[in-house]
Amino acid sequence: MKFCSSCGAPVSHITPEGDNRPRYVCDACATIHYQNPRIIAGCIAEWQDKILLCRRAIEPRHGLWTLPAGFMENRETTLQGAMREAMEEANAQVINTSLFCTFSIPHISQVYMMYRGELHQGYASPGIESLETALLTEQQIPWNELAFPVIRETLKLYYADKTSGQFRVHSGDLVRDADQQFTVTIHL
Amino acid sequence: MKFCSSCGAPVSHITPEGDNRPRYVCDACATIHYQNPRIIAGCIAEWQDKILLCRRAIEPRHGLWTLPAGFMENRETTLQGAMREAMEEANAQVINTSLFCTFSIPHISQVYMMYRGELHQGYASPGIESLETALLTEQQIPWNELAFPVIRETLKLYYADKTSGQFRVHSGDLVRDADQQFTVTIHL
Repeated sequence: MKFCSSCGAPVSHITPEGDNRPRYVCDACATIHYQNPRIIAGCIAEWQDKILLCRRAIEPRHGLWTLPAGFMENRETTLQGAMREAMEEANAQVINTSLFCTFSIPHISQVYMMYRGELHQGYASPGIESLETALLTEQQIPWNELAFPVIRETLKLYYADKTSGQFRVHSGDLVRDADQQFTVTIHL
Repeated sequence: MKFCSSCGAPVSHITPEGDNRPRYVCDACATIHYQNPRIIAGCIAEWQDKILLCRRAIEPRHGLWTLPAGFMENRETTLQGAMREAMEEANAQVINTSLFCTFSIPHISQVYMMYRGELHQGYASPGIESLETALLTEQQIPWNELAFPVIRETLKLYYADKTSGQFRVHSGDLVRDADQQFTVTIHL
């Protein structure tokens, strides 16, 4: 951020009076431009013993596999966001949904909120952001071709719950340290 | 948003090619400025049969009571945000935390993520954003002087679980309709 989105004047990165961290503050109109984490809403859509994965047609991670998920939009709920992404990426309608897990990823200021639900009539087909869609069993999951670490962690929790016979809500963090290694903490 | 934060030129509110909703797009450098919901992280801090409430020293809702909560910052986890807010608003350390509920509030593009934990040593005192702090039993909760509807709904879920003897993770929406009435939907 270099310019004020309200008045167009340059901004400075300074700590406002009464605050405890630097913000972008307009040199002219003094507007404080806060920046906050973004939510990615998505879902595990189940059909019989399979779940829906999409192969990405966009960067980053073009060609790798992911659960349908994307940035939550203003004026929608997290669940609406998750269902919209399933429709956009896989023409998939997901029903009987419930919250499955949340993951904070602080180094990229993202929070994932993933739902679990039933893929209506088992139907999916690639949306414009997907090269292909697939319904896969646990044995068919391409673990080495998943797009993001959070997808791997979400799927690990999912199959652990499925094996145990009881699905619960999970909450965790994926923290990247200075050596670029991820530490996964599951709080719940 | 009137000006591009990257280059300072005016922006237009148009639907970019390949997108399906209007965004602020720079007339000069074509940067698309996405706007997304913000997360409010907070907590129910328990001490014996009481919980911690804060009376707001800031607008909106100056003078009314709330749970410690505030906008999540970049580069923190939701749990870190909740604990930071408890410290900032009530000098309170909250331990043994776990996720309690999430609420989407689409008309203001906010998502609440509320934790439940133990107020360390039962200690709290007003931070700069609080007029006072109090440890209150269920009977002492000032239901008619709560700052926000989502606080009421969070506390209702909390006391329902407490009465049942089992705390679960909840997820719901607070939707304001055209008549300014709230509809509360608890999915979980």
